Amino acid sequence: MHKLMDECLARMKQARDLPWQPKPCDLADRLSLQDAAKGVGSAQSLDQLAQDIMPYATGNTHPKFFGWVHGAGLPVSVGAEMVAATMNSNCGGRDHGAIEVERATLDWLLGVSGMPDTASAILTTGTSQATILGLTAARNRQFGHDVRKTGIQSLPKIAVYVRRGTHSCIGKALEAMGYGTDAIHIVDTDENMRMDIASLALAVAEDQASGRVPLAVIGTAGSVNTGSFDNLDKIADFCAEFDIWFHVDAAFGFWAKLADQPWKQLTDGMERANSISCDFHKWMSIPYDCGACMIYDRTLHFDTFTSRPNYLEQQEEGLGGGDLWFCDYGLELSRGFRALKVWTAIKSIGTDAFSASITDNCKQTFLMAELVEASDLLELSFPVSSNVCCFYVAHGEALLHKSPLWRASPDP
Amino acid sequence: MHKLMDECLARMKQARDLPWQPKPCDLADRLSLQDAAKGVGSAQSLDQLAQDIMPYATGNTHPKFFGWVHGAGLPVSVGAEMVAATMNSNCGGRDHGAIEVERATLDWLLGVSGMPDTASAILTTGTSQATILGLTAARNRQFGHDVRKTGIQSLPKIAVYVRRGTHSCIGKALEAMGYGTDAIHIVDTDENMRMDIASLALAVAEDQASGRVPLAVIGTAGSVNTGSFDNLDKIADFCAEFDIWFHVDAAFGFWAKLADQPWKQLTDGMERANSISCDFHKWMSIPYDCGACMIYDRTLHFDTFTSRPNYLEQQEEGLGGGDLWFCDYGLELSRGFRALKVWTAIKSIGTDAFSASITDNCKQTFLMAELVEASDLLELSFPVSSNVCCFYVAHGEALLHKSPLWRASPDP
Repeated sequence: MHKLMDECLARMKQARDLPWQPKPCDLADRLSLQDAAKGVGSAQSLDQLAQDIMPYATGNTHPKFFGWVHGAGLPVSVGAEMVAATMNSNCGGRDHGAIEVERATLDWLLGVSGMPDTASAILTTGTSQATILGLTAARNRQFGHDVRKTGIQSLPKIAVYVRRGTHSCIGKALEAMGYGTDAIHIVDTDENMRMDIASLALAVAEDQASGRVPLAVIGTAGSVNTGSFDNLDKIADFCAEFDIWFHVDAAFGFWAKLADQPWKQLTDGMERANSISCDFHKWMSIPYDCGACMIYDRTLHFDTFTSRPNYLEQQEEGLGGGDLWFCDYGLELSRGFRALKVWTAIKSIGTDAFSASITDNCKQTFLMAELVEASDLLELSFPVSSNVCCFYVAHGEALLHKSPLWRASPDP
Repeated sequence: MHKLMDECLARMKQARDLPWQPKPCDLADRLSLQDAAKGVGSAQSLDQLAQDIMPYATGNTHPKFFGWVHGAGLPVSVGAEMVAATMNSNCGGRDHGAIEVERATLDWLLGVSGMPDTASAILTTGTSQATILGLTAARNRQFGHDVRKTGIQSLPKIAVYVRRGTHSCIGKALEAMGYGTDAIHIVDTDENMRMDIASLALAVAEDQASGRVPLAVIGTAGSVNTGSFDNLDKIADFCAEFDIWFHVDAAFGFWAKLADQPWKQLTDGMERANSISCDFHKWMSIPYDCGACMIYDRTLHFDTFTSRPNYLEQQEEGLGGGDLWFCDYGLELSRGFRALKVWTAIKSIGTDAFSASITDNCKQTFLMAELVEASDLLELSFPVSSNVCCFYVAHGEALLHKSPLWRASPDP
């Protein structure tokens, strides 16, 4: 086991020399469990982890990996995951240390968000799950908790407002919730690739006239194709005026809250949302998977999801006690201890270092944009907002060598 | 880091001397991240993991922990989680080693299930999520994939048949899916606490007469309160005759497939299901969290969930290539590498050892039932089926000392 740890640490130290490499053709055969009646023992299986599996990672651990928005991981998380596996805690509920770690982590997260003291949160696998939680809370606020019993089929149709370029997880959440993607109303963007508030007002009026209930407006903080941010304050104003749920898809962009200006101000107004979803495994480099859902009203959050089977009846003391059971705040009864890797990272590295790294990342992107603008060969596809720089070869022979990277669609 | 590993391994070796203990009153203060601007460094934070957090685990790592159905964890998983954190793979898709590990793990799982070669599977956080996936596939088979776009609101009401004592995750899934718990039709049980097929037939006829569409029948393999199994073969016959989706909630009981007779036969008929959900973090002792959803038809499974945003457009080769993207089979785009801990456990320990351990667990439970029956003080609450023995103090003074453990409700 110590040898394997040395190999893990060596791999992290050598990350710079280890770009992504294709997996060997016979890897599937080597990994087969078809003849697994007899185990090979821990020594041999751990050797195979180091030799056959570890070298063929996603590539995101290399400092020059710019594919998608993968986080790079953190060495200290290796220790956290090791302890989490040793403890083997079920974080669905009960009164034990892991619940306190998640509580401390979420208190910190809610502090970063700037949401009111009444807010609550839960860790999820990522923003896809967090979006389902947020929109389910919106549904329950709109139609009352009886919807948990009677369902949506006898209720009016709803509309959810997104701007062009919104992430596909919104549609996937609405599909899973039974509304279908027809519930999505796409709103035009302004010249800065932000949701156009006049178009939003028109869209809402149109739906209300036809009997559709505006369920939620989705603001985007850090779009995946261009890194752009909606004007969250303006959306918050609009939602407050029309009493519509305001959800922020901040999968990536939430962490601009930790950045220096001018990037920090991109998130202004997010703290006024009814729900926010974000990922830790992107800009915060926490190992996969880890996201969160924040909801402005703890009572609503609890009432949307609480449902204890009789064998989990609340007890006054002991392991069956405790006042924070996460199964009351989400869809899962059994939950892993993903809080520990977040807690350990924040505790050991500190928020200042994350802030500096995120700020630096934005600076690099702005520098890249400057270089593109200074080039005779390249053109920017869109203005840079945060950490995404899209450009293309506009002049010269290189145009012939189109690669898929240059085919990313704009989100405005 | 090596010191921390020694502490993890020591904790596992000493498990027998480490029962659950209440967390200290000041733990919340000690864990607070309120002043986290400056990190304390990895050495100090890892020390705190060992001292303040690791001792206050759920208790399930102790060999005499009989609370709920928690698995105990496995030492070899510490190595697997360490490697997974180092690799930091996103298992939503792409062409890399982690996908091959999940593929090998799922091939093995499907082999254990006995489902047809056309079946596919995906790892989830647990049965709660797997149930949502299975019932969503049922919904799409019943109403066509257009339901992804148009939703369920214009469709007929549905009914899902469960027997008394079915797990609450079914209700929670139906709530999340927009059907509401009113969609549940509870079917009576027979004298062996199994779903009564005559009552099921009556329930289906009643719903069909009133225009409700029978969407799915849920068979239970290993109920949480009594460990009982439905007669899955009879339910499969019924579902085949009436063309109704057959889902098996096998969160715990799936693994009786690995047990010796007579317990193995409890699962007969499960292989005829349209979908099966199960957990690895229970009877298989894989660390939290890890479950799976199996669906009998890979094409249906894919068509129910595939939805690629444009930045994940399929590429012919390289990291963006590959023919198995798990985001096409579930709700998540970012996914952790939970396959590695399963793969490592099977590879190193082998299925024979798991079989022996599960069989032994059933034998212990039957022995406990014999001792209860031989006692002047105790009475069995229900006949023992697999690994749960419910009993109570029926005679003598101990009756005065009722504890919450004895208040578990029956599921028949």
